[in-house]
Amino acid sequence: MSDNTLRVGLVGYGFMGRTHANAYAQVGHFFDLERRPVVTAVCARNAERAREFADRWGIETIVPDWQSLVARDDIDLIDIASPNDTHHDIAIAAAEAGKMVLCEKPLGRNAAESREMVDAVEKAGVANMVWYNYRRVPAVTLARNLIDEGRLGRIFHYRAKFLQDWTISSDLPQGGEGLWRLDVGVAGSGVTGDLLAHCIDTALWLNGPIDSVSGMTETFIRERQHNITGKVEPVGIDDASAFLARFGNGSLATFEATRYARGHKALYTLEINGEHASIFWDLHDLHRLQYFDHRDEGTTRGWRSVHITDGDHPYMDKWWVPGLQIGYEHTFIHQVADFLAGVESGTPAAPTFRDALATDLVTDAVLKSATSRQWENAG
Amino acid sequence: MSDNTLRVGLVGYGFMGRTHANAYAQVGHFFDLERRPVVTAVCARNAERAREFADRWGIETIVPDWQSLVARDDIDLIDIASPNDTHHDIAIAAAEAGKMVLCEKPLGRNAAESREMVDAVEKAGVANMVWYNYRRVPAVTLARNLIDEGRLGRIFHYRAKFLQDWTISSDLPQGGEGLWRLDVGVAGSGVTGDLLAHCIDTALWLNGPIDSVSGMTETFIRERQHNITGKVEPVGIDDASAFLARFGNGSLATFEATRYARGHKALYTLEINGEHASIFWDLHDLHRLQYFDHRDEGTTRGWRSVHITDGDHPYMDKWWVPGLQIGYEHTFIHQVADFLAGVESGTPAAPTFRDALATDLVTDAVLKSATSRQWENAG
Amino acid sequence: MSDNTLRVGLVGYGFMGRTHANAYAQVGHFFDLERRPVVTAVCARNAERAREFADRWGIETIVPDWQSLVARDDIDLIDIASPNDTHHDIAIAAAEAGKMVLCEKPLGRNAAESREMVDAVEKAGVANMVWYNYRRVPAVTLARNLIDEGRLGRIFHYRAKFLQDWTISSDLPQGGEGLWRLDVGVAGSGVTGDLLAHCIDTALWLNGPIDSVSGMTETFIRERQHNITGKVEPVGIDDASAFLARFGNGSLATFEATRYARGHKALYTLEINGEHASIFWDLHDLHRLQYFDHRDEGTTRGWRSVHITDGDHPYMDKWWVPGLQIGYEHTFIHQVADFLAGVESGTPAAPTFRDALATDLVTDAVLKSATSRQWENAG
Amino acid sequence: MSDNTLRVGLVGYGFMGRTHANAYAQVGHFFDLERRPVVTAVCARNAERAREFADRWGIETIVPDWQSLVARDDIDLIDIASPNDTHHDIAIAAAEAGKMVLCEKPLGRNAAESREMVDAVEKAGVANMVWYNYRRVPAVTLARNLIDEGRLGRIFHYRAKFLQDWTISSDLPQGGEGLWRLDVGVAGSGVTGDLLAHCIDTALWLNGPIDSVSGMTETFIRERQHNITGKVEPVGIDDASAFLARFGNGSLATFEATRYARGHKALYTLEINGEHASIFWDLHDLHRLQYFDHRDEGTTRGWRSVHITDGDHPYMDKWWVPGLQIGYEHTFIHQVADFLAGVESGTPAAPTFRDALATDLVTDAVLKSATSRQWENAG
Repeated sequence: MSDNTLRVGLVGYGFMGRTHANAYAQVGHFFDLERRPVVTAVCARNAERAREFADRWGIETIVPDWQSLVARDDIDLIDIASPNDTHHDIAIAAAEAGKMVLCEKPLGRNAAESREMVDAVEKAGVANMVWYNYRRVPAVTLARNLIDEGRLGRIFHYRAKFLQDWTISSDLPQGGEGLWRLDVGVAGSGVTGDLLAHCIDTALWLNGPIDSVSGMTETFIRERQHNITGKVEPVGIDDASAFLARFGNGSLATFEATRYARGHKALYTLEINGEHASIFWDLHDLHRLQYFDHRDEGTTRGWRSVHITDGDHPYMDKWWVPGLQIGYEHTFIHQVADFLAGVESGTPAAPTFRDALATDLVTDAVLKSATSRQWENAG
Repeated sequence: MSDNTLRVGLVGYGFMGRTHANAYAQVGHFFDLERRPVVTAVCARNAERAREFADRWGIETIVPDWQSLVARDDIDLIDIASPNDTHHDIAIAAAEAGKMVLCEKPLGRNAAESREMVDAVEKAGVANMVWYNYRRVPAVTLARNLIDEGRLGRIFHYRAKFLQDWTISSDLPQGGEGLWRLDVGVAGSGVTGDLLAHCIDTALWLNGPIDSVSGMTETFIRERQHNITGKVEPVGIDDASAFLARFGNGSLATFEATRYARGHKALYTLEINGEHASIFWDLHDLHRLQYFDHRDEGTTRGWRSVHITDGDHPYMDKWWVPGLQIGYEHTFIHQVADFLAGVESGTPAAPTFRDALATDLVTDAVLKSATSRQWENAG
Repeated sequence: MSDNTLRVGLVGYGFMGRTHANAYAQVGHFFDLERRPVVTAVCARNAERAREFADRWGIETIVPDWQSLVARDDIDLIDIASPNDTHHDIAIAAAEAGKMVLCEKPLGRNAAESREMVDAVEKAGVANMVWYNYRRVPAVTLARNLIDEGRLGRIFHYRAKFLQDWTISSDLPQGGEGLWRLDVGVAGSGVTGDLLAHCIDTALWLNGPIDSVSGMTETFIRERQHNITGKVEPVGIDDASAFLARFGNGSLATFEATRYARGHKALYTLEINGEHASIFWDLHDLHRLQYFDHRDEGTTRGWRSVHITDGDHPYMDKWWVPGLQIGYEHTFIHQVADFLAGVESGTPAAPTFRDALATDLVTDAVLKSATSRQWENAG
Repeated sequence: MSDNTLRVGLVGYGFMGRTHANAYAQVGHFFDLERRPVVTAVCARNAERAREFADRWGIETIVPDWQSLVARDDIDLIDIASPNDTHHDIAIAAAEAGKMVLCEKPLGRNAAESREMVDAVEKAGVANMVWYNYRRVPAVTLARNLIDEGRLGRIFHYRAKFLQDWTISSDLPQGGEGLWRLDVGVAGSGVTGDLLAHCIDTALWLNGPIDSVSGMTETFIRERQHNITGKVEPVGIDDASAFLARFGNGSLATFEATRYARGHKALYTLEINGEHASIFWDLHDLHRLQYFDHRDEGTTRGWRSVHITDGDHPYMDKWWVPGLQIGYEHTFIHQVADFLAGVESGTPAAPTFRDALATDLVTDAVLKSATSRQWENAG
């Protein structure tokens, strides 16, 4: 390997493993980098699938477990794309081994786990980041820029939801390959840590800290067969979760996530209403930003559907020509590019582990409120 | 007046007075009626404006106050389109005088007032109805029909919001002509009784009773000049109000209303997600219903934008030809038509005063929860 | 009748008769008028239907034929809402009798008929207007205002289409009640005179004269049973019609109309692209105007969806409050209001018969070009 | 190089060169291939840019001209992504050298050039394909599948347009780096061969052969500075082009392309109306297909917005999970995958050079008709 290579050890070869592998493969084709990342090793729970994955992505080495990966000298960065229950131990071991650490979201299964992970990377002084990829949708980045420029003025309202429909069937098992998100032991929680966590991360980034929340959760299908035990077992995760929130800046918010919203595959939407302007975005048309500016002249004032494909839109000078849209996977490429730029410049790219802990504090408060049936502090 | 005339005495000549007068004028042009309503008298707080109103709508008589209107023998029905603080006394007096009573929403300023109004009309045995007009948007009526037919299956989620932006300026006064909705003494509450009440009425109709709620409210601009006193006074209304809810059928809900959502004039939206199908509707395109049916074949399954202008859509056989849309005012015409049909058939048209009381019980619970910071029962 | 009444004699009680009757009934409720129009007589081809129509709209007199109507002294204005083959004779007789004349579109079945009608009203010096109602959609009027203000700059492109799907079935007969639009003898032409005529009228108003056209037409179903003869007969109308055009201002255009576009009930769309800005409108969401202004700042530039419901939008100060939409029928109300204002002010409201003749010259050129298979002048 | 590598020699490193390089790099990550393509050499007009391009994409060899590339033994396939005036000579030389040949669209600058290219590849018996990439948008492929299954029934209408706005400024030069599309000598024609060619290729694929056309073209800005000569020179290309067409299946069509449609960056739209169903697609939201099926039940019939991200949509099993969209570049990846599968199976992937010649015959007919001002045969 040449000097300018950043050697990545990847844990996980499922859906998220693929998005990360693709990001490493593609980032150098479109961004100017001092060091090009190369996935040099992947670790195997299932040797056959690991082999197939390694072949597809040109990965030289397969190791039998994450411990072996962390122990290698020829790895600069450990990237954790495995189920939630593995994040804590791998991240801490990697930090202690002096590796940079990237971790899929949510950071831990709860804030307690996450706090230990934060401590580990900060003590080790290693570069770290959590894969809240939706910050790097160009439309969402543009939203942040508009807010930073003060275009919206005082913020009154924030609302976000993340709607899916893939668990409505009661025949769907919990647990096992591809279904660990239904197993509370592995996932930590249901949609709260999975989908709401995305909504919260973006919200904290766009609108600042959340003070307090009132939440509710529901498990619509309360027993499912467990793929690993083979038995019908109680379902421990929340199928749906919603909460009211008050932000530190005085704005009010509603948040909701569910896997029981028929007709929506991955409908993450967010809207923010300010004194002068409002913004709306949704993941099903991620290449558009809806923008309303009350300062526009009255008769022609309306919501603008901005097609985020021009060279002056965030990240879009790296891609094609105006009018030609990018997709979901590009958010990961942007995030790798920003991470690498952060390493180069010494200004870490967000969200760091510490940034991501803030999200876990909110999700913990939501789950606590759903039980206590009263408002809880989110800080 | 001929025998087949229903003589209406109208209280109020503001925005709502106009929508009602129009409904009485138009209903006979499009619906087949045994008795045609005619507004025969209007009562005057401002004599000049009442004169202008009467001229415009061909109303023969102007009386000086609602008491005179209720006392007349040549009036069959009292229609209350005046501010909220007048509803209680007029409705009870009209019922005691044996008149039919129609009342603008919300019924009373709170459930206590509303309960006395219900008692009065039921004791008097007079026909009664509350103007929750959005039930009669053809798309919303169709939504109800689809639900009744079982198309959606088990319901998981309901969400509604009503967003406006007309009170964002701190220069806007509270109270006086056209601004009584900001005066808590007149209105009873802010957006909770005004906008959320619409959302709740529709929700109860489409999705059944609400068991419990957790609410929050906010007054963003806490002092405004009062037009009547001329002084800067504390604002007593809620500018924004949101709540979580659990319905009796096990579904979860989020509700929100505000007058601080820049870019939205009257964006009432509702969505309902069932096991098999989902429905979405919004007031800014009231002539469309969005419908998703999971039973459609996979590759061509998608949200259907149904243009509600065909002869087999509710009420639409009365209007033009397919493709040609109707507007806001038609909902009132439909409601008068249904009220008259109810009088003819003996099956009262909904929502009666008793139906509308259910909404007030929910709004009261939301306001109580916003203070208690815990869940409250809504029954 | 009082002095301030304008007495209307209405010919036709079908779909168009209803829209006109409604316009006369409603205009005074919303617009300030010196003279209020009242339909005082209607003429009967079918006595029973005329009676029902007169009852519904409060029309005092039924006369047996249009000749009797024109001959009456108590009629100020003849309004022609009967099939196309009657327009010519009635309009000329009415003009000669000194009546004001309003005529449904198209003016004549061809430009030759129309020219005689223009001559008649101009010779008689009577007020006249043709019911090209879509000019009075508030969004379309706003489009005209924006063009007049120079917002668009030099115009490059105009495109319009009017798509319906109601004649796809080969079982549909031609001719008879409600089906005369398929009978070429009555209608004059098919979609060219019916739907394209609307597109052309608006285009001439928004974009100035058309110099030349290249057209094509098609009759997809070439034989249909005729309801009156009872026989299967050749179809004489054009089912679909499209043409290329060059405007006097140098812009290029495409126009298309059909009754064979599955999924579209009355989708009239128009778009105009200028150097600085573009406009799009469609009849299925008639209360919106899409507006793109290239002078907006780059990163937030996008098509604006303007909800045409504010008080500063054309005609909308007469209706409800911001956010609440009007519908199809209101365009006729606006047109009556403008006609009456024109009579009062002495500046005739457009389109006059002469204005409407320009449209017929274009439709004639389109039909000629479809036969000659070459470009034809449209002037 | 291993045995299972397909060695590509790439001509061109501009916008199209990047899309092709990306396709070769990515195809093996997502598709199962017998032979993985590797770009082994690129040829240089500008040595510095070629070096940068080669570094970015990991290309080993840079050769000084296309002749050197064609002459190499270690190249299996020549891919032509250079300006239009180079296609003819390179393709013929490559075919004669026994290489597979891929060529950017349009094939030649006119049908005469294209015919010679077809003859060359067919005589040489080498695999060949033209990069009409929009056939491989999953939504467009799905449209083709639906048509093939007979879902639409008899076809009545086809309409397509491709709207851009990037040449409106008169300050834009013609010719030179990135601007050769304005130089008629290089490009052959303006939007007709550039944008309309895309529309025509898709149309021929979806709707069969075109019989005859009536076209018009315009050059709005008739003189521009030429970057290479430095002089103000007449503009030879067509800025806008539109035509009427009749297909062999009896359907009618309108086509239009322009670079003067303010507000549209790359708005390629197509619609097809059949007896039973209709389809609409646009490139600005390429991940959606609009589908209307008249056989749906009446009250809930509407245009379905199908989010083409499910595993049973064309190509989408190769990508992410439902709800997560892909973008523009993926169409090229799909096309490489199909080309390689065609080579493996012996059934060539379309469009071959011969298929693409059919498009050039139509564009030639359009340009001829624009001059002759009459209909021209397109076969």
